[in-house]
Amino acid sequence: MRTYDRNADPVEFGRVVALTDAVFAIALTLLVLDLALPATAADAPLAVALAGAAPRFFAFAISVAVVGTHYLANHENLSMIQKIDSGLLGLTIPYLGLIALIPFAQGVLADRPEEPLTLALYAIVLGCASVIAALMLWHAHRHGLLREPLLGRDAQYEILRSGLPIVVFFSSAGLAFLIGGWTVLLWVSLWPLDAILARLQRRAA
Amino acid sequence: MRTYDRNADPVEFGRVVALTDAVFAIALTLLVLDLALPATAADAPLAVALAGAAPRFFAFAISVAVVGTHYLANHENLSMIQKIDSGLLGLTIPYLGLIALIPFAQGVLADRPEEPLTLALYAIVLGCASVIAALMLWHAHRHGLLREPLLGRDAQYEILRSGLPIVVFFSSAGLAFLIGGWTVLLWVSLWPLDAILARLQRRAA
Amino acid sequence: MRTYDRNADPVEFGRVVALTDAVFAIALTLLVLDLALPATAADAPLAVALAGAAPRFFAFAISVAVVGTHYLANHENLSMIQKIDSGLLGLTIPYLGLIALIPFAQGVLADRPEEPLTLALYAIVLGCASVIAALMLWHAHRHGLLREPLLGRDAQYEILRSGLPIVVFFSSAGLAFLIGGWTVLLWVSLWPLDAILARLQRRAA
Amino acid sequence: MRTYDRNADPVEFGRVVALTDAVFAIALTLLVLDLALPATAADAPLAVALAGAAPRFFAFAISVAVVGTHYLANHENLSMIQKIDSGLLGLTIPYLGLIALIPFAQGVLADRPEEPLTLALYAIVLGCASVIAALMLWHAHRHGLLREPLLGRDAQYEILRSGLPIVVFFSSAGLAFLIGGWTVLLWVSLWPLDAILARLQRRAA
Repeated sequence: MRTYDRNADPVEFGRVVALTDAVFAIALTLLVLDLALPATAADAPLAVALAGAAPRFFAFAISVAVVGTHYLANHENLSMIQKIDSGLLGLTIPYLGLIALIPFAQGVLADRPEEPLTLALYAIVLGCASVIAALMLWHAHRHGLLREPLLGRDAQYEILRSGLPIVVFFSSAGLAFLIGGWTVLLWVSLWPLDAILARLQRRAA
Repeated sequence: MRTYDRNADPVEFGRVVALTDAVFAIALTLLVLDLALPATAADAPLAVALAGAAPRFFAFAISVAVVGTHYLANHENLSMIQKIDSGLLGLTIPYLGLIALIPFAQGVLADRPEEPLTLALYAIVLGCASVIAALMLWHAHRHGLLREPLLGRDAQYEILRSGLPIVVFFSSAGLAFLIGGWTVLLWVSLWPLDAILARLQRRAA
Repeated sequence: MRTYDRNADPVEFGRVVALTDAVFAIALTLLVLDLALPATAADAPLAVALAGAAPRFFAFAISVAVVGTHYLANHENLSMIQKIDSGLLGLTIPYLGLIALIPFAQGVLADRPEEPLTLALYAIVLGCASVIAALMLWHAHRHGLLREPLLGRDAQYEILRSGLPIVVFFSSAGLAFLIGGWTVLLWVSLWPLDAILARLQRRAA
Repeated sequence: MRTYDRNADPVEFGRVVALTDAVFAIALTLLVLDLALPATAADAPLAVALAGAAPRFFAFAISVAVVGTHYLANHENLSMIQKIDSGLLGLTIPYLGLIALIPFAQGVLADRPEEPLTLALYAIVLGCASVIAALMLWHAHRHGLLREPLLGRDAQYEILRSGLPIVVFFSSAGLAFLIGGWTVLLWVSLWPLDAILARLQRRAA
């Protein structure tokens, strides 16, 4: 298995990181394309048009937070990785494909904020991205690609932190039909929740 | 608190920089999407269509200058930073979300150049981005993430240079209702103004 | 001939890599723009609209796999290159132009999934990109730009692995008129097929 | 004047390069957005729709070549630069703004291939970008930012190679009204022409 070490092959290691960063940057920026004021609002005063676009602004803010949470997790996970092999490279492609889907899911959510299925669709995209992110960490762990092996308490915290978004996103896909728009609170709560777990993990270390 | 040093963790430090650069590049490039000649102009001669699109060209030029000013400020601020911690990382996400909003604000401005509210909306986006930029510098200062501590005169100049765009953008949001399109002169004047302050700061050092 | 060495000119070498990575990232992300639910579906329930968009999701997934395969091949080929000269730089431009065409080919495929000509068009874009990729490797081999010269068995495997996508894509352009949508299976099969060849190549080395 | 050295400040030097690369990558990729088949062609067979889009494919190919030529020139110019100062940074912003305009100029050209004014508009955008590129090199020369000072024959060749595109683009803006679509031949000829000058320059050195 060919592997690329972050010190010995900085170009090859860096390319995967650069591709990932660029996809995150584009996903973050494409979110704004859905903010365009509807053509039907062209005759209304701007204040009215903006007020009518409130759900879109809301969807935009949620999506920035959600893309940001995924980016921070990816940033931290990759900081633990010393070497990238073909397996990790292969997993990166569908992972980035899912991140690229977030602007689409946001567009659907902005168009039909009242339908629970839009929330479920969004949650499933995020849940699948979290599954691949966990698989990437697992693959790196199994194939000795980590800087330092994950052991004991540390490993348990990583499993918890990788599994939590999977559980939250997939269960929220179902919950969306019961609690509607409140579902997004679950998603957004992942950011502070993970920060707390990270602090506990560092204290345990 | 986990921190990433620019020398010890070049990949992790560099990723945040790369994400920021990519968002700026995309924001700069998306500005052009609003230049598309209106479909209603399809039968008019090109010279007429271009003349009718003059406000859009004007909004494009303003936005390039405004994104450029933010980029130059971000470039200089980051050059003072030695380490990035989770706090700085967390602030980067909403900062980039606001930079990504600039093409939207420009589109609204290009569509309705005569409404002062569009200028106010634009100014508020820029003002909020300036607030987060100042918070990032402040956070770096407070948590010892700077290359060299900011002291005395130097610190005063940095406060002045961080505060100036905040004051200008938020006050221009109100002024827009009095002075209309002249508001953009205030924004654009920030570039030479900051250059003068930078020169005075270097002379004082 | 001016050349840029990956160790002696890291900025100049890295720029070409960064341009390539960014084009791949944008191509991957632009694919999502074709997923927008058709305006005609605005009144239908979301589940119906999504079901109607199934061919678009299919075209999206195929394109992510196809862009990913090209990226992995480019990543591996570039890892063998020590120096970039003007010839390689010149070949990079049309290569990236063809990668940039993939979202267009996908959009046509998503719009008219039943016409074999769309599949042929897509296959020709991919085939041309594979030809230029092979030319780049050949140019690097001929002008001594590789890290280690390709010799014997290794060279034969590289020729096989460079030629295979060319043969598959161009022949699939014709086959599309016979086997229709099954053509995409040929494209997607290139990923595992190349992985097998890569394994055989390493075993032979 | 604060300067960023490519060896002493790799992050700060690299950021400017990365911003430039990203804008080029996005400009190259946005070109494809203008290829979308017109909605009016939805009922026509694909072969007819594609044939009708021939001018757009032509405009796309021209633009890839033109963006590529600018990228290669920028790549070579930057390889001569050792340090970036605020002046160079400031010139980068309008330069990138003009590169970002190329997809717009291409869109207008694709929409109205028969109007000479579209060619003139395109040529003026490219001419202005060439002027700023020449100013950047001149600024670097005047302020001692080059790796090695430009002297004698070498300097004369650089002036020739910087001035040639300016002369060609601006004169072609006028010629477009006489020779119509043949204007693009002048633009595309800059690529081989510059390659010849580069060869003569190296021989003279």
